[in-house]
Amino acid sequence: MTTPAAELGEVVLDHGSGTQLSHELLALIVETLGDVYIGEMEDSAMLPIAAGQIAMTTDSFVVDPPFFGNGDIGKIAVCGTVNDLAVVGAKPLYLTLGMILETGLPIARLVQVLTSIRETAREAGVQIVCGDTKVVRKGEADQIYLNTAGVGVFERTPLRMRNVRPGDRVILSGPIGNHTVHLLSIREGLGFEQRVLSDCAPINGMLDELFAAVDEGDVRSVRDVTRGGLAAVLHEYAGAVERTIRIDKEALPIQFETLMATDMLGIDPIHSANEGCVCLFVDPSAEQKVLDALRAHKHGTGAVVIGEVTEQDGALVLMRDAEGRDSVVEELLGAELPRLC
Amino acid sequence: MTTPAAELGEVVLDHGSGTQLSHELLALIVETLGDVYIGEMEDSAMLPIAAGQIAMTTDSFVVDPPFFGNGDIGKIAVCGTVNDLAVVGAKPLYLTLGMILETGLPIARLVQVLTSIRETAREAGVQIVCGDTKVVRKGEADQIYLNTAGVGVFERTPLRMRNVRPGDRVILSGPIGNHTVHLLSIREGLGFEQRVLSDCAPINGMLDELFAAVDEGDVRSVRDVTRGGLAAVLHEYAGAVERTIRIDKEALPIQFETLMATDMLGIDPIHSANEGCVCLFVDPSAEQKVLDALRAHKHGTGAVVIGEVTEQDGALVLMRDAEGRDSVVEELLGAELPRLC
Repeated sequence: MTTPAAELGEVVLDHGSGTQLSHELLALIVETLGDVYIGEMEDSAMLPIAAGQIAMTTDSFVVDPPFFGNGDIGKIAVCGTVNDLAVVGAKPLYLTLGMILETGLPIARLVQVLTSIRETAREAGVQIVCGDTKVVRKGEADQIYLNTAGVGVFERTPLRMRNVRPGDRVILSGPIGNHTVHLLSIREGLGFEQRVLSDCAPINGMLDELFAAVDEGDVRSVRDVTRGGLAAVLHEYAGAVERTIRIDKEALPIQFETLMATDMLGIDPIHSANEGCVCLFVDPSAEQKVLDALRAHKHGTGAVVIGEVTEQDGALVLMRDAEGRDSVVEELLGAELPRLC
Repeated sequence: MTTPAAELGEVVLDHGSGTQLSHELLALIVETLGDVYIGEMEDSAMLPIAAGQIAMTTDSFVVDPPFFGNGDIGKIAVCGTVNDLAVVGAKPLYLTLGMILETGLPIARLVQVLTSIRETAREAGVQIVCGDTKVVRKGEADQIYLNTAGVGVFERTPLRMRNVRPGDRVILSGPIGNHTVHLLSIREGLGFEQRVLSDCAPINGMLDELFAAVDEGDVRSVRDVTRGGLAAVLHEYAGAVERTIRIDKEALPIQFETLMATDMLGIDPIHSANEGCVCLFVDPSAEQKVLDALRAHKHGTGAVVIGEVTEQDGALVLMRDAEGRDSVVEELLGAELPRLC
């Protein structure tokens, strides 16, 4: 884009009307997305697909604030859907892009979001195949909401929760809590946002390298740790396999400033949303291979073993402290922390 | 659902937090969607696909009011995406469902939307394969916004705009303007909403029967007439094939009460959004076969020829009146009528 930001103006209702102004906005969108956009001017994109099985997922994004220190809602919208496809073992291919814009949104901000979408889609190796833009009146949305849906194909056996077995190691690819602290710090003016950055990243490249480095079956199942935090992921797995999962409190990767901030805010990193951290369930014999492969990737340098799936029946999540005492990690009833993703 | 509506309560922030209350809402969603929901509790749905080419589309829905006389935002959200897949010649298979809910939305309303989604998905023969629910604070959305993305497969040659040739007949499957008048009448308290109903319908079944009744190539291209109205569709085609399209004013199918209402509102049915009307470009020799096939279906009883693609160069849309005079149908710069879909 060579037009100065100030000249781009603001989103108006007519940008969503299906008329000439809609076309002008669409032209700007297509130009900004560049070569990651492969849509045609038909009502549906027509796309080659190789496999007999596809993966499909969707997420809406209502991030507050939509523009934060080291990212924005556009980056999160690509990462969220790419990661959901990647963790089931699929290769993400195609993304749709739905946008709900509030009247008055500076178009320069929209261009910023689209630029993030373009750059993140490039990193993840996915294409935007179609989109839709709706404009609502002032006060009917908070600046910008996005939705992405994604399609991926399977070049390996899909990973499922039920693959997980007693004895499996639980591995985290990196620190938890940073995305939540970064956003809350900006929202509440806490001053941590320079020191604690969002972990938002597409992790399909890291998983590709991991799968190439291990044998089929070494990695039983993977989940990205988003809303509800690590606790929600562990409860989901404990419930799915009807076993107790025990994690080691001392092993949890939490940045010092994140711990300070969560203490101050009265929240727990184990319940906090992330956007680029995955939790892996791994055959114990492959533990070191998995750690080495993750740590070799820029998004997995902080990978650590945090616990294991025990033989014990019952869908419990336990946390063992430095003195060897176990306490139950509850699943929260609610979190009252909206709009982190 | 056997729980009385009043006991269901309202949507609260914690319904979107990824915690226990999220799971309770999800259980209600899954129960209400019934057998049209085939998602698993994995991060992506895993789905069989037969074809070497898929169609993919998305739409966000911000309908105001979300609950109207003969439908609601849930019905529109299924129809919009099903129809976008069907008009390119694809068989719609899988839909994703993204929901943005405003705190305070009565859960009984959500159940109503989900019930419409279920019934419309059944009629269209599609399945909901995954979903996502976000909750925003009061005043950050207007009750409920939806997004659907859809995947379809091609069992016939895809239909493209560029297939259209001079001499092709332009056919409408039914009256225009009714959806817009129905919604505006409710919004503005005009009293037309009992007489003029939204045309919202999934039209894939009608197109299936049409394609079965004609030869390959008889139907060149199809577009559903939504935002921007018939005028926007005709301009799109005129531009794509660089020919002038001429329509016959007297032939336009417009219900009497719709004409009264649009006159009163100062809008034109030709620019008005619809949700179940398609515009077909047809080989002239197949005109009668196409009309017969459309009229045999409940969603196409009002099918009529409204014009043709001329030999004349230039991307113009002309309308011929009863006296044989042609006037140019402009494409509007904007419409100032937000949130009809």
